[in-house]
Amino acid sequence: MKKLLPLALAACAATLALPAAAQFAKPEDAIKYRQAAFVVMAKHFGSLRAMAEGKAPFDVKVAAADADVIAAVSHLPYTGFIPGTEKGGNTEAKPEIWQQQAKFKEAADKTAGELDKVIAAARSGSLDSLKTAVGSAGRTCKACHDDFRKKD
Amino acid sequence: MKKLLPLALAACAATLALPAAAQFAKPEDAIKYRQAAFVVMAKHFGSLRAMAEGKAPFDVKVAAADADVIAAVSHLPYTGFIPGTEKGGNTEAKPEIWQQQAKFKEAADKTAGELDKVIAAARSGSLDSLKTAVGSAGRTCKACHDDFRKKD
Repeated sequence: MKKLLPLALAACAATLALPAAAQFAKPEDAIKYRQAAFVVMAKHFGSLRAMAEGKAPFDVKVAAADADVIAAVSHLPYTGFIPGTEKGGNTEAKPEIWQQQAKFKEAADKTAGELDKVIAAARSGSLDSLKTAVGSAGRTCKACHDDFRKKD
Repeated sequence: MKKLLPLALAACAATLALPAAAQFAKPEDAIKYRQAAFVVMAKHFGSLRAMAEGKAPFDVKVAAADADVIAAVSHLPYTGFIPGTEKGGNTEAKPEIWQQQAKFKEAADKTAGELDKVIAAARSGSLDSLKTAVGSAGRTCKACHDDFRKKD
């Protein structure tokens, strides 16, 4: 059984990895890319959260622009969690990402679903919808960070 | 005349700075954000360039996906070049960005125009159009880096 494990892991990794757009010359490039996509996403999620929490004025145009950026980048980070990028750079990724690939994929999918709701709410122009969606997505983000990201 | 310079610079800076979505808690956050947006953009421009140069197979779906990401992030980095972020983090920004704001804005606008052509070419499904657009945009990127980014 034990011998099959590396093969099973490789198969799981293959389902996570994506084609051409996700090819990287060096492992460090993949780490840098996934972190960069998270930074961009966090900035625009933070902008929406500030509006949802009343810390910034609710601006429908800004919210829609934030939604557009999140829609474009939210699926990108996961293409960078490829085999061989468990260490290196200044990654905060926990080994569990590669050890529990099914669980990680489930968490990533759940986050994507929650972000879809945030995107729809931000585009709807309804502050109440945004508050609900941002609160729920924020908890999903945190749960994934708790499980798969090292503490600062 | 000399006294007017800081005011003129501030006015130029105001035209470069954008509203809510571009607000940052700390100068380092703005630096991290603009670098992250460039990293994401460079990855997807690199994917298109590899196809344009025959180093990767031309895949219409991948090219269109790359175009979507570039369209969403290509205007983001410039919102991070705000006053007070001339130094800090591991920025490679040259002081000329803030000393020659009009020239920098012109270079940024030119790059945006070239990237619009790349986006259109990538979405058109024509490899020939992509080759032309990528070559031209690449030269524009390099010119801006030469003028405004420190050498590695």
